[in-house]
Amino acid sequence: MTYNTFPNPSLQITKDHQIFIKENPVEKPGPGQALVHITATGICGSDVHFWKHGQIGELKVLGNCIMGHETAGEVIELGEGVTDVKIGDRVAIEPQVTCGKCFLCLQGDYNLCENTKFLAVYPNDGSMQRFKVVNAQCLYKLPDNMSFEEGALCEPLSVAYHGVERAELELGRGAMICGAGPIGLATLVMANASGASPLVISDLSAERLEFAKKLIPRVKTYQIDLKKSSEENAEGIRELFGPDEEDAPPRVLECTGVESSVITAAYVARRGGSITVIGVGRPTFNNFPFMKLSLAEIDVKFINRYHQSWPPVIKLISEGIIDVKPFVTHRFPLEKADEAMKLSSDPKNGSIKVIIEDKVKVL
Amino acid sequence: MTYNTFPNPSLQITKDHQIFIKENPVEKPGPGQALVHITATGICGSDVHFWKHGQIGELKVLGNCIMGHETAGEVIELGEGVTDVKIGDRVAIEPQVTCGKCFLCLQGDYNLCENTKFLAVYPNDGSMQRFKVVNAQCLYKLPDNMSFEEGALCEPLSVAYHGVERAELELGRGAMICGAGPIGLATLVMANASGASPLVISDLSAERLEFAKKLIPRVKTYQIDLKKSSEENAEGIRELFGPDEEDAPPRVLECTGVESSVITAAYVARRGGSITVIGVGRPTFNNFPFMKLSLAEIDVKFINRYHQSWPPVIKLISEGIIDVKPFVTHRFPLEKADEAMKLSSDPKNGSIKVIIEDKVKVL
Amino acid sequence: MTYNTFPNPSLQITKDHQIFIKENPVEKPGPGQALVHITATGICGSDVHFWKHGQIGELKVLGNCIMGHETAGEVIELGEGVTDVKIGDRVAIEPQVTCGKCFLCLQGDYNLCENTKFLAVYPNDGSMQRFKVVNAQCLYKLPDNMSFEEGALCEPLSVAYHGVERAELELGRGAMICGAGPIGLATLVMANASGASPLVISDLSAERLEFAKKLIPRVKTYQIDLKKSSEENAEGIRELFGPDEEDAPPRVLECTGVESSVITAAYVARRGGSITVIGVGRPTFNNFPFMKLSLAEIDVKFINRYHQSWPPVIKLISEGIIDVKPFVTHRFPLEKADEAMKLSSDPKNGSIKVIIEDKVKVL
Amino acid sequence: MTYNTFPNPSLQITKDHQIFIKENPVEKPGPGQALVHITATGICGSDVHFWKHGQIGELKVLGNCIMGHETAGEVIELGEGVTDVKIGDRVAIEPQVTCGKCFLCLQGDYNLCENTKFLAVYPNDGSMQRFKVVNAQCLYKLPDNMSFEEGALCEPLSVAYHGVERAELELGRGAMICGAGPIGLATLVMANASGASPLVISDLSAERLEFAKKLIPRVKTYQIDLKKSSEENAEGIRELFGPDEEDAPPRVLECTGVESSVITAAYVARRGGSITVIGVGRPTFNNFPFMKLSLAEIDVKFINRYHQSWPPVIKLISEGIIDVKPFVTHRFPLEKADEAMKLSSDPKNGSIKVIIEDKVKVL
Repeated sequence: MTYNTFPNPSLQITKDHQIFIKENPVEKPGPGQALVHITATGICGSDVHFWKHGQIGELKVLGNCIMGHETAGEVIELGEGVTDVKIGDRVAIEPQVTCGKCFLCLQGDYNLCENTKFLAVYPNDGSMQRFKVVNAQCLYKLPDNMSFEEGALCEPLSVAYHGVERAELELGRGAMICGAGPIGLATLVMANASGASPLVISDLSAERLEFAKKLIPRVKTYQIDLKKSSEENAEGIRELFGPDEEDAPPRVLECTGVESSVITAAYVARRGGSITVIGVGRPTFNNFPFMKLSLAEIDVKFINRYHQSWPPVIKLISEGIIDVKPFVTHRFPLEKADEAMKLSSDPKNGSIKVIIEDKVKVL
Repeated sequence: MTYNTFPNPSLQITKDHQIFIKENPVEKPGPGQALVHITATGICGSDVHFWKHGQIGELKVLGNCIMGHETAGEVIELGEGVTDVKIGDRVAIEPQVTCGKCFLCLQGDYNLCENTKFLAVYPNDGSMQRFKVVNAQCLYKLPDNMSFEEGALCEPLSVAYHGVERAELELGRGAMICGAGPIGLATLVMANASGASPLVISDLSAERLEFAKKLIPRVKTYQIDLKKSSEENAEGIRELFGPDEEDAPPRVLECTGVESSVITAAYVARRGGSITVIGVGRPTFNNFPFMKLSLAEIDVKFINRYHQSWPPVIKLISEGIIDVKPFVTHRFPLEKADEAMKLSSDPKNGSIKVIIEDKVKVL
Repeated sequence: MTYNTFPNPSLQITKDHQIFIKENPVEKPGPGQALVHITATGICGSDVHFWKHGQIGELKVLGNCIMGHETAGEVIELGEGVTDVKIGDRVAIEPQVTCGKCFLCLQGDYNLCENTKFLAVYPNDGSMQRFKVVNAQCLYKLPDNMSFEEGALCEPLSVAYHGVERAELELGRGAMICGAGPIGLATLVMANASGASPLVISDLSAERLEFAKKLIPRVKTYQIDLKKSSEENAEGIRELFGPDEEDAPPRVLECTGVESSVITAAYVARRGGSITVIGVGRPTFNNFPFMKLSLAEIDVKFINRYHQSWPPVIKLISEGIIDVKPFVTHRFPLEKADEAMKLSSDPKNGSIKVIIEDKVKVL
Repeated sequence: MTYNTFPNPSLQITKDHQIFIKENPVEKPGPGQALVHITATGICGSDVHFWKHGQIGELKVLGNCIMGHETAGEVIELGEGVTDVKIGDRVAIEPQVTCGKCFLCLQGDYNLCENTKFLAVYPNDGSMQRFKVVNAQCLYKLPDNMSFEEGALCEPLSVAYHGVERAELELGRGAMICGAGPIGLATLVMANASGASPLVISDLSAERLEFAKKLIPRVKTYQIDLKKSSEENAEGIRELFGPDEEDAPPRVLECTGVESSVITAAYVARRGGSITVIGVGRPTFNNFPFMKLSLAEIDVKFINRYHQSWPPVIKLISEGIIDVKPFVTHRFPLEKADEAMKLSSDPKNGSIKVIIEDKVKVL
């Protein structure tokens, strides 16, 4: 096992939310586990948020913790009883481990399990390191035509997949995507693949809208004007769909989690339609447009992560139905993971997805 | 046609929202219409609200308008081409007339039609009069074992029916009803009939909760304490369901439309569950518990009136599955409709449903 | 541990499908398991079928196997790590153990898991014995107001529950139940609790229909006449619902698995409705009414066992929403389990549910 | 109104199912109607079936009737009260007129209305003529970038749309299409647009499979071998999806209506999946694989025509999401409609869609 000769640098966050690179001892895989050489990890907005604020809602960094949860790698050692993967398999990693016994797990909603252990949420170490022990059940083999980067992108795409799945997009009927950040763009890609039509995406930034347009040429774009009210912005968006109530989109996918955007979503959605809120934000909202939603029977749905999404997302990428390569705007070697975080955290850099890669051959 | 000899007193509201009794000329039924002798009309909270405020949201009383939309009666004359009902038929009336052509009508959501004409919403006269012309398509025959009062109650019960239908209650799984006013109680009756279990109902008023308990003995009651926070009240409610997350109700039926109650509902609902908001209220809400709903994937649904609900509601009453007789706490003759409104408007009277009845024989 | 002093008689079936009573050694509960004193086991039609035919479809009795899977008992010893139940708990037993890892388990359809181990399906011993080791995850505590018999009945009622759940019965809309055997009657009880209305049940036997009528007085009954065609019988059933297509039941629950009955179901169901086939039967059918179903868009659904049904079924019984006591027509002590089988196998005895009970005190 | 100067040749079928071209008098549009210059009509398999057999199921040609129901044209005269379309509008025609009042119409299932009048079903004349009066509600404006031919194709594509809609295809999860005739190919195009993946299509004919592959390059093809059993063919199809049960398609779209193909579908579908039967065939089937479907909980759904499908189908074509131009293999002028029928009726000609076009300028 030659990999023993490699160091295992990791990007860690401290309880006073400083980040730094530090050598981390390599664990041995237990029964049902595998040791994975992490070859690609994407940086998520949540990684940056933990760094800048030390917490997300009630999830707090109470001690040193290795970051990273958008991940792919190569299996290099197997624990006892593992038969579904073998050494040398290239894999994407689903970063949640759930109890498997509670009513939520039993009914298929394991993403809502209250005993979930999630990578890079303290005290569970994440994947911004060279070697990581993972439950074999969380590994999904990558087809030969998929890169490790694409494997790592399965995680944010799974969020979008679950959003689109819960939204129940309709072939040939309109969908609106609010927000053109990484999750909004991933949602756009999924909505496009599902045949919803027409598609409109909105954002504050003209650059991001341009990026969206390059990614999915058939999408129409709307730049949100903060000087306008939510209703006025909604009116502008509706004009892109067409003149009549019937033209308005029955499905709105809200990917910002910002109050004004959720309100805009409520005014964009067609009577009898729904809003699916994929974005996360502040604990509570004001000015929630209750009677608008009530009179038009517009339902508001929410999502939290994903379940059983790796197999379809992998199929969508490997069969060429979605192309996620354009998401990766920057790459850093593992040893410069801290610089990757810095670049990612500054909106001026216009990054969409920054990948931390590790190209050493360990097998 | 002996009915010509009867006067047609009506309860009218003016544009400065005064109410008074006034003789109203009797129309002739046109093609597809029927003239109905209105024998029972219930007073709705919306009638009282129009009287006290002159409007509900954007619906304004801009001129004289006859009130009343919870209605049953007897068919006494037929317009051209009417074959589905005949003279002498005892009928309940669905008080909405929709366009039948828009996409919402075509997809079965005719309650959301933007061209709906609704009884007693200006400028459409309502049913608090002796004789009223109605589209024959809005008439549903009452079985012999149903009274006119029960026929009139089909309207508020239809609201509850549509709420319960959209909520998708589950046999043997818990449901919470927030609010024990007429709509909350109607919802309780429907939830009971659907086998949801356990059932809990909440209200500010101990009297109303007692009424609920008499109506449906198996329901548990929780008196909301306004000195407590929404979360604290939610905790008290959850204790009635049981100790574990699994015991919490997957379905919450919010029947008050009050901000604090909607928030309580969010904290009562089980992870992966839903809130169906049946109550109406202010245009917007503050303190909407966004992240609570997001992390637990609790969907928020809304309802606006009903569609295709008269046939099932009539079956539920006539087959004895629900008993709505206890709802009627007060009765007034048509000529005293104004007194009925006064009694109904004062919470001290503890009325649930006040019926304006007309017992004259006109055929 | 006084229970060691008791013998453990068991009812076993041999590979040439003879049955006999034999003493069976008592196992020790392993990690995550519990030893249960079996106090009540119901006899299922499948037990009788195994006895008479040695197999059901591809499930064959290839060696000695203890029978019984409708079961309740008392926990008398715990394996390592069991915390959800404790010694002395009265429990009902879900008789299926699934892999927990396949896509079907992960999506909540664990009843379809291909690696299911089911009690009393060779080579897995069943519950017709005094002491049985069971996975603690399969145990559901019985409330104080539920008897062991009622606990055992949770199994056939779970079949009916899953059927009704998949059928999506509608409050105030009609449902037809084909067959008044134990599963048909359990389905009737569930359909009644869910508020479907009207209800009609059919059977060949007038006695069974009388039993059904006593169980649920509001059900209408139709005696199938084998001299009539399936369409003619369907016509007779439809008359009980009412004169118009709209009166026909949108939901038909087929509980016999017999070809002619499935065809009748197709002619009973309302346009746009569905048939849910709960009964099992021969591998293939002839005369499947393809174009009738196609033109009327009547869907055909199927069920296989149940998932997550014990909690709601227990609530329905313990809250008094369903009464299952009348199902038990005969009782035998464990030592006479073979006689219980004999009685149960002869239709002339008119048994509905025969319970094998064990009243010794072992704790 | 210059169009009065044009003759109105029509293709008629007689009660002894001969076809011939005959001049037909032009009607005037009544209230709510429009006169349409029919510029394109596709030939459907049902047209050929009526010609060859004089009936389809219970629909019989009892007298002369003009054929054709896949249609587009230009509005040339308006009846009273028509405001939604105007003279000169290029339109596609939904060929069904329903009652708008029955419970099926009210619940949005107007395709199941028992009082439907359908173009070219005796005694309702069809569109294989130059001028046809149509209800304005059945007209859907064609965007400038859509041809009349594409407008006519909206009808068979609507069948496929409704099939795919009822099947609830899942993004990134497999779908099987049985049959590569016009409806199978239309279904393939819809399934492709919806992102189902992987896709496999089967047929007896290698040529048709080649056509399918050209149409949708990512589809895999399987040639049915009638010397093999349905199960053996199913096994061959499953191999194309992958080695495990999880790889099998959760959705099968059966587009032939042939018994052996429906049976194959049952063996292809994944456990917990569904078959949607779009094809029509004989009144009844034998060898329906009951227990296979029952044990695997594979539901069987059916479709009859379509509802509210023109708006999404038009959007899918006009936005370039689906390309239907390759469907048209042959074109004939209206005056040679009988030759078009002849060509279409002979499988040796390898036609997919034959269009009868009328290029005269009448406005």
